[in-house]
Amino acid sequence: MSMIKTMEFRDGKLFLLDQRKIPIETEFFECMTFEDVDFAIKDMVVRGAPAIGAAAAYGVVLAAGQFMGCDKLEFLKRMNEACDVLYASRPTAVNLMWAVKRMRRVFDDNLSLETRQIYEKLKEEADEIFKEDFATNKKIAEYGNTVVPQKACILTHCNTGALAATGYGTALGIVREAFYSGKDIFVYADETRPRLQGARLTAWELVQEGIPSKLIADSASATLIRDKKIDLILVGADRIASNGDTANKIGTFMLSVVAKVYGVPFYIAAPTSTIDFDIDTGKDIKIEERSAEEITHISGVRIAPEGIEVYNPAFDVTPAENITAIITEKGIVTEPYRESILKLKDRPKN
Amino acid sequence: MSMIKTMEFRDGKLFLLDQRKIPIETEFFECMTFEDVDFAIKDMVVRGAPAIGAAAAYGVVLAAGQFMGCDKLEFLKRMNEACDVLYASRPTAVNLMWAVKRMRRVFDDNLSLETRQIYEKLKEEADEIFKEDFATNKKIAEYGNTVVPQKACILTHCNTGALAATGYGTALGIVREAFYSGKDIFVYADETRPRLQGARLTAWELVQEGIPSKLIADSASATLIRDKKIDLILVGADRIASNGDTANKIGTFMLSVVAKVYGVPFYIAAPTSTIDFDIDTGKDIKIEERSAEEITHISGVRIAPEGIEVYNPAFDVTPAENITAIITEKGIVTEPYRESILKLKDRPKN
Repeated sequence: MSMIKTMEFRDGKLFLLDQRKIPIETEFFECMTFEDVDFAIKDMVVRGAPAIGAAAAYGVVLAAGQFMGCDKLEFLKRMNEACDVLYASRPTAVNLMWAVKRMRRVFDDNLSLETRQIYEKLKEEADEIFKEDFATNKKIAEYGNTVVPQKACILTHCNTGALAATGYGTALGIVREAFYSGKDIFVYADETRPRLQGARLTAWELVQEGIPSKLIADSASATLIRDKKIDLILVGADRIASNGDTANKIGTFMLSVVAKVYGVPFYIAAPTSTIDFDIDTGKDIKIEERSAEEITHISGVRIAPEGIEVYNPAFDVTPAENITAIITEKGIVTEPYRESILKLKDRPKN
Repeated sequence: MSMIKTMEFRDGKLFLLDQRKIPIETEFFECMTFEDVDFAIKDMVVRGAPAIGAAAAYGVVLAAGQFMGCDKLEFLKRMNEACDVLYASRPTAVNLMWAVKRMRRVFDDNLSLETRQIYEKLKEEADEIFKEDFATNKKIAEYGNTVVPQKACILTHCNTGALAATGYGTALGIVREAFYSGKDIFVYADETRPRLQGARLTAWELVQEGIPSKLIADSASATLIRDKKIDLILVGADRIASNGDTANKIGTFMLSVVAKVYGVPFYIAAPTSTIDFDIDTGKDIKIEERSAEEITHISGVRIAPEGIEVYNPAFDVTPAENITAIITEKGIVTEPYRESILKLKDRPKN
């Protein structure tokens, strides 16, 4: 198994594997300030809900480094401002909010300490989020592998692999687990326009791992699903509502509709930190709309005419009734989701 | 109304608007031989079922020019070979076969004439195919406009406009007709990976015409359909089987599934020359698989990693039961398609 390192905190700086450049180049983007992290999240140097969460946590650490010399009140004010900026760097993925809240609790709880000591506490907490995420992914993968049949043909969307997390991955983590447990699997990865996370990132991970696979256009999946070429669909999540409605990369909902019509199991794989217990249904999830250039240009090359308007939502919401099961690090939950998800809230990891 | 000229036969040569270069450049690709036309069809200099048919007809004319100096037997042999090449230049669109067969009949029926006279007859027939196609599109547009409500929001896929035909277009011809008849319409055009005919060509036509519209990723349509933002879907066809099953650009089937689930009317617009009465159902339609580079590269820029395998079908088949109606130049047909399509066979144009 190849180890893909998506981020590393070293010498007081955060190094992010620059996901805008994969698969052409493997470069690290150096963040010295929380503003650098804010930029990196917005511009998708780092993407994938769990990875964004961990990067934002280190962003809070960088902020503490920046404001360590301030007096305590000023430090607290600046830290709160930095947290607000990081919190808002992308609107849909809830892991980001979850991670920032968790970091904020650390300095709120330790205000009696010196700023240098608070910095150390924050660093420990970010490291903990990072490590937990990897362990969480591994757990998701183990649970998920129980739903993958021998010789399964799996369709996946976007990138939910090591790159989307601190390693291993969620939906693609399950693919990894199935492959390394000796199941003779085959993967169809769709390219995932507009940002091409499937073509750029998932295909890259699949090639690195040597997992038998093919890349397809997003719209080629429907015929494969109808013709029983796909045994199951595994995707990730950016936010899960209390009733199981799930926001994920644009195109997920479309896949779920076709899967339901043709009776193909459709699974969401995500850490419980992706569940937003504060929202009731998918209708309450804010969907980020991204720039027109993501559609009109590819790799800086214009593909659409000047003057055309664009509608570019980054995510869509798959209703709970289209989801066969949600695979988390605390186990697999099914309908009725409102009850089964609520039970996850305080369940310890198994 | 802007006039978009997709092809012109002039001075014994065929000039094709190079659709690989739109919307960045407007250049004509000069065909001096039938081999040039074969290349132009294969490489998608010209694309769109009706346009391919007309281009192939002129390809037969070019062949006659090339072999005019041969004796009659040699001429006939060479012409048959040229027709075979053009006939096979792309496998899915039946208008191509229809046009080549029609041209072949001209030289078969006129073997007593001199080769120069046969050339002239072929030229007349190709001009006739060209002119008929424009008139056919206009008729389709008029019939089609009857199903477009005032203030309709229309979703279309791929390019079925003037560029796909000898002018005006089929599904996009209906959009034109609705717009020029004063209906306050809005169009969502999906980009249509992998060749981006929606982003490159349909968006270009919409901007040229000033029709209010937005470009979206292919996978963004499902939410719009579910949320009742789309009143009807209009697409073209590359081949229609006797039972109404319709081959069209990859992604059409996926749209039809979502449209059916959410009760949005789904229309096919195509000339009757797209109907293949020789095949019973969509299962008999050969689906062209195109090169991996269409997925791994965009505008010559690599987007997917080395070593990834690709599955790249150019078309899919939408079953008749997902189609609300098929709009032809001889009228609009609905279920039961086997009967209604058969009646079109000998029906004169209304």
